[in-house]
Amino acid sequence: MIDIQGALAAWIKVLSKKNVIIKRNILSEFETATFFTKQKILAVIYPTKTKNIQKCLKIANKFYVPVYPISIGKNWGYGSHVPVKNNCVVMDLSKMNKIIDFDEKLAYITVEPGVTFEQVYKFLHSKKSKLIMSVTGSSPYSSLIGNILERGVGKGRYGNRYQYACGMEIVLPNGECIHTGFARFNGAKTGQISRSGVGPSFDDMFIQSNLGVVTKMTIWLLPKPNYFQVFFYNIKEGSQLGDLIDALRVLKLEGTLEGNFLIVNDYRLLSFNEKYSSKNKGEQPLTLLELEKLKKSLKWGGAWNGEGALLSASKEQGISTRKRVQKLLKNNVSRLIFFDEMKAKATKILDLPLRLFTGIDLKKTVNDAFYKSTFLGIPTMNGINSIYWRKKSFSTKALNPDMDNCGILWIDAIAPFEGNSVSIVIQIMKKQFLRYGFEPNIGINCVTERSVYITGEILYDRNIKDNDKKAIKCYKKTFKELVKKGFIPNRLTVNSMDLLPSSNDDYDTFLHKLKKTIDPNNILSPGRYGIY
Amino acid sequence: MIDIQGALAAWIKVLSKKNVIIKRNILSEFETATFFTKQKILAVIYPTKTKNIQKCLKIANKFYVPVYPISIGKNWGYGSHVPVKNNCVVMDLSKMNKIIDFDEKLAYITVEPGVTFEQVYKFLHSKKSKLIMSVTGSSPYSSLIGNILERGVGKGRYGNRYQYACGMEIVLPNGECIHTGFARFNGAKTGQISRSGVGPSFDDMFIQSNLGVVTKMTIWLLPKPNYFQVFFYNIKEGSQLGDLIDALRVLKLEGTLEGNFLIVNDYRLLSFNEKYSSKNKGEQPLTLLELEKLKKSLKWGGAWNGEGALLSASKEQGISTRKRVQKLLKNNVSRLIFFDEMKAKATKILDLPLRLFTGIDLKKTVNDAFYKSTFLGIPTMNGINSIYWRKKSFSTKALNPDMDNCGILWIDAIAPFEGNSVSIVIQIMKKQFLRYGFEPNIGINCVTERSVYITGEILYDRNIKDNDKKAIKCYKKTFKELVKKGFIPNRLTVNSMDLLPSSNDDYDTFLHKLKKTIDPNNILSPGRYGIY
Repeated sequence: MIDIQGALAAWIKVLSKKNVIIKRNILSEFETATFFTKQKILAVIYPTKTKNIQKCLKIANKFYVPVYPISIGKNWGYGSHVPVKNNCVVMDLSKMNKIIDFDEKLAYITVEPGVTFEQVYKFLHSKKSKLIMSVTGSSPYSSLIGNILERGVGKGRYGNRYQYACGMEIVLPNGECIHTGFARFNGAKTGQISRSGVGPSFDDMFIQSNLGVVTKMTIWLLPKPNYFQVFFYNIKEGSQLGDLIDALRVLKLEGTLEGNFLIVNDYRLLSFNEKYSSKNKGEQPLTLLELEKLKKSLKWGGAWNGEGALLSASKEQGISTRKRVQKLLKNNVSRLIFFDEMKAKATKILDLPLRLFTGIDLKKTVNDAFYKSTFLGIPTMNGINSIYWRKKSFSTKALNPDMDNCGILWIDAIAPFEGNSVSIVIQIMKKQFLRYGFEPNIGINCVTERSVYITGEILYDRNIKDNDKKAIKCYKKTFKELVKKGFIPNRLTVNSMDLLPSSNDDYDTFLHKLKKTIDPNNILSPGRYGIY
Repeated sequence: MIDIQGALAAWIKVLSKKNVIIKRNILSEFETATFFTKQKILAVIYPTKTKNIQKCLKIANKFYVPVYPISIGKNWGYGSHVPVKNNCVVMDLSKMNKIIDFDEKLAYITVEPGVTFEQVYKFLHSKKSKLIMSVTGSSPYSSLIGNILERGVGKGRYGNRYQYACGMEIVLPNGECIHTGFARFNGAKTGQISRSGVGPSFDDMFIQSNLGVVTKMTIWLLPKPNYFQVFFYNIKEGSQLGDLIDALRVLKLEGTLEGNFLIVNDYRLLSFNEKYSSKNKGEQPLTLLELEKLKKSLKWGGAWNGEGALLSASKEQGISTRKRVQKLLKNNVSRLIFFDEMKAKATKILDLPLRLFTGIDLKKTVNDAFYKSTFLGIPTMNGINSIYWRKKSFSTKALNPDMDNCGILWIDAIAPFEGNSVSIVIQIMKKQFLRYGFEPNIGINCVTERSVYITGEILYDRNIKDNDKKAIKCYKKTFKELVKKGFIPNRLTVNSMDLLPSSNDDYDTFLHKLKKTIDPNNILSPGRYGIY
């Protein structure tokens, strides 16, 4: 039934030869993720415009060849560019990398799937724009659209990024093309400024989904603050976490703290800054003794370490908000430090004497934390270090965790924004990670007023025997325990799509029926998010 | 093909006789809206639980009888309880009026479709809750779910109400039942605190739609502020509106002003407070002379009149935010007045002397505007006066605009949040309303950071000959002009569903295919929002 030769010939006609790749060595790169996968791919195709995607999908239907679109393919820790199922053709959209529209006054930018965070940052800079985007904690060279379609979160007020985007252009599996919101009407003035249109909305149907290929999206931007502060806090003991979370919820619900900020445990903090130094060839997790030793070298090593930012329209607003944060956090944290520009400047002056006496590079710290804060929409490579945690050596120049045999597996779950629930999720992850020989490297994204998005990162060296197997076992066991306690993972890897429990209602039937209607030949990313 | 007798007999078996109504006099009430409609209905059925709705829809399919669900039926100005198409059975969900769940800490409430704003307000009061809901400007006795499903907006931070709700339970046209977000999984702890689950999301597909019957929804609540301020501002001339809108956008985008607030023109303000006094039997609009005379009686009669509220976590935050608002608005408004509790108290003391000398009831004004502010989640009947604007007399006791022959037709459009666009929409509405003999009664809901939701209200007396016809003509012409300029109406009446232009892509085909799959016999609210 599947006729790959027929499809390839037809695709070459549409895309030209250079955009249809079947060279084995290139394909094998696309088959490599940051954990064990056995999916093979048949080809990689590179459309350069929407019209061609429409044609390509019609061809896929004609020859029954499943196609797996990726934006850029940096979905590290979830599957990179590897499809969910065997024998797909990868449709790589990285050559569609145009910034299509931009509006300083209404604060939005319209982009194609190949546009990266770095690209938008540079674009805004070149326009002398006073706007900033919510950036990912991952690579600056990853796709804005790709990240949103995986429901990834960013920093700050627009951190729950999929909610701050609209006006999608989507190619359906049969090759038809639709637009969400008002963008479907001729001459509409409102396609880029409103998520809702008239009648039902469908944007969210194409997120974590295989019902269409998103080829365009408008992403909302935030004005730069007139007065900016970042702050850092930590707690010494894990047992203080519940109270901290409850205090943060109050600050979020009342509106004092807005958008997403991150709290990381000691292991995660270490992975940003240090390298795993165990002498046990990476087969055992860091001992508590080693953990404490490494933490001391950081000078800022709480059991949990949080950040935050206040983007204020006036200095007076900023100061009054800071006081409120201080009031509610002071009894719940061990340390709490705020930086505004004045303090950052003063710290810079202090730098040289301090460096001479203590060896701490204060200038760099303040630069990274304040002037180049991710809360100001500046992409960073700082988080990327962590994925080489257990590797002996690496170069950030041609960063390629897939080909460098980095082992990374993310397991994420949403919990209600309250101490008890968060503690349960943390305990499950901690117990299982340690049991299988991995550091319990955990972060808490405080994304919405009522929910946190907890991420566990299984980090290892794929070159070390059995690590791949252990990682998968650890992942599956953690997944199962989370589900058992009612904390359903909210983002899946290409190998865990079928781990989701069945719905207790008619949802699964409904979803299958939708897929069948929209994609009768099941040619678009079969199996993604469990949808067939 | 359609067998109404068969359906009625089967429904009686499920719902009992008292919940299946075919009495002509009752049916004719359901056939009456606040404007001319000719749709007849066959019966009214009252399910009291989800399971019965499932059975009722299976029966509807078996006997090919179209069913039109309403929550309570107070969709005044858009069609009340009248179905879009002739010969439907109305499914009235007002008997499903239970508050199912409530959580003070995570700030949510889970309700059935029959639950009203007044009911939730009283419930929260009885629980001594420190939480408030975003209320409608319409009747306190309307349905929370119904309003959200029409994408109605409320006041304050959660004013774009459909975005602050989750965990829907939905009966599909074939009788199957699904839950959105995490609510579909056994034992999930996150069904009520997260809009997104895992995989695609479908909540927004059931808003302004006919793809399912929403039988349960979780609605998020806001904590009461520790320091509360309301403010009022106006501009004398319509020509100042553009600059005011631009200043408000800056305040919204930077986060100083949050959520929805309303700006109304002089006609709308008058309609809240006065009665139409023309001697021309209501056949002509208020003359400019009469308008100015009436405005003087109000003491606060700008061409445009705005409100706002600051819900702050501390007094200091409130004061600094107030200063920022003052700074940005002062050059763009004629008057700007803030009230906090201290000022409200002082004003109360001033009341008696002022009343003696000027006749102004300051106490009532402050009470309505501050202590009973809708921004504190307190439902109000104040806005309801307006719908009797052209009526000679009415009683608010058994308020029933449908049966009182009130003429009300809302025409709404979304515009980008910037002066020029807003002015164009206002001009279109103004010109057409006056042309057909209606006051251009207009409000601007400042709902999101990038979009405003402009509502024009055609008000008349249905007892006066030809008014019905004129109103429909005015509505259609205004609609057409708005579409022509790219401002697509965002909420429709039961008689205007087919006025939407076709999409310029494959959207209409896609939507039709979805409907066909989910509702093959087209038994659920056929034609609603143009979906067949």
